[in-house]
Amino acid sequence: MPTEESQHANGAARPGYAADKQQLITRLRRIEGQVRGLQRLIEEDTYCIDVLTQVAAVSKALQGVGVQLLDEHLQHCVAGAAAGGDHERTEHLVHEATRAVERLLRA
Amino acid sequence: MPTEESQHANGAARPGYAADKQQLITRLRRIEGQVRGLQRLIEEDTYCIDVLTQVAAVSKALQGVGVQLLDEHLQHCVAGAAAGGDHERTEHLVHEATRAVERLLRA
Amino acid sequence: MPTEESQHANGAARPGYAADKQQLITRLRRIEGQVRGLQRLIEEDTYCIDVLTQVAAVSKALQGVGVQLLDEHLQHCVAGAAAGGDHERTEHLVHEATRAVERLLRA
Amino acid sequence: MPTEESQHANGAARPGYAADKQQLITRLRRIEGQVRGLQRLIEEDTYCIDVLTQVAAVSKALQGVGVQLLDEHLQHCVAGAAAGGDHERTEHLVHEATRAVERLLRA
Repeated sequence: MPTEESQHANGAARPGYAADKQQLITRLRRIEGQVRGLQRLIEEDTYCIDVLTQVAAVSKALQGVGVQLLDEHLQHCVAGAAAGGDHERTEHLVHEATRAVERLLRA
Repeated sequence: MPTEESQHANGAARPGYAADKQQLITRLRRIEGQVRGLQRLIEEDTYCIDVLTQVAAVSKALQGVGVQLLDEHLQHCVAGAAAGGDHERTEHLVHEATRAVERLLRA
Repeated sequence: MPTEESQHANGAARPGYAADKQQLITRLRRIEGQVRGLQRLIEEDTYCIDVLTQVAAVSKALQGVGVQLLDEHLQHCVAGAAAGGDHERTEHLVHEATRAVERLLRA
Repeated sequence: MPTEESQHANGAARPGYAADKQQLITRLRRIEGQVRGLQRLIEEDTYCIDVLTQVAAVSKALQGVGVQLLDEHLQHCVAGAAAGGDHERTEHLVHEATRAVERLLRA
């Protein structure tokens, strides 16, 4: 599943989201709790539509994490390559990012 | 967050997914594990795009659960109301289900 | 592209949306106009993000048509089969409808 | 509907998609034809699910245009601002682009 690439796009040891690691992990812990909440709803025979509403809410929260990761990737990795004047690398990174957006849209 | 309704649409003690409870809980446990895996990817400074790819995969898995819940709701609750000849109730349940689909589409 | 099926699910000469044909065609004409509007925006070198915002609006309008078609299909075709007591046919129609929802979600 | 901004992000007279205008207009003309095709399907009482399948196809084609616009915006406008060393402007443009992605995801 790792991309061809898989090293950090900014050529450094830090991913684009480095400054927000703890916040992202907190968001994902909350989503993990929501997924456990879904199991509980099923366990307790909750009405189908109420479970579905909660599935949509968790899905939205997850997409929100995706959008934050995209923003920080563009902000630090893509803009970093562009600021460094490496046109070919910037083009590669932008295509890679828009392919990731396509996967989010299809998800 | 519970719907106005919130009782089982088939008027019985069982939701539409009753026969597949354990399978649904297993799917959701796997998704819970995937969300924990996302936290680990962040913790380990995984490349942004590889995390995003995995976010899309988890999102797709969650939508899959949504589609299964919808299928079983239509199969048992909505079709049940229709088979019982209650037109008004069937109409209400169909609108409720398509509004749930809208929420999934917006998620 | 037609489904295996491709005859009307209610066994009749009318699709589920028969009563709303003119309204659906009107909605689609408006969407056609919006797509022409997008061509004009591009022609006039409109700022990328403003074009993208409009693409999202047209996409939302199109999904709205999809949701209406789904609602009327469930209301008339699926509920009709269920009311007629044909369990096997109802099950088939529900699976077909949820697969259509999956295609909308992936679109 | 125009953004606060609404001038070209690269400060020039050309949008990010300038080099591909004709190709984009051609894609949108094809989509316009598909939307007219949908009206014809409705006019001819085509089976609901076959119409829905085609709605999903048009929706996918439209999202494809959105992804192309995003790619070219990032490639030319955002990367241009970053290459010019304007950090504040780059940050603004990235946020603007990710908000556009959010609107596509909700569409």
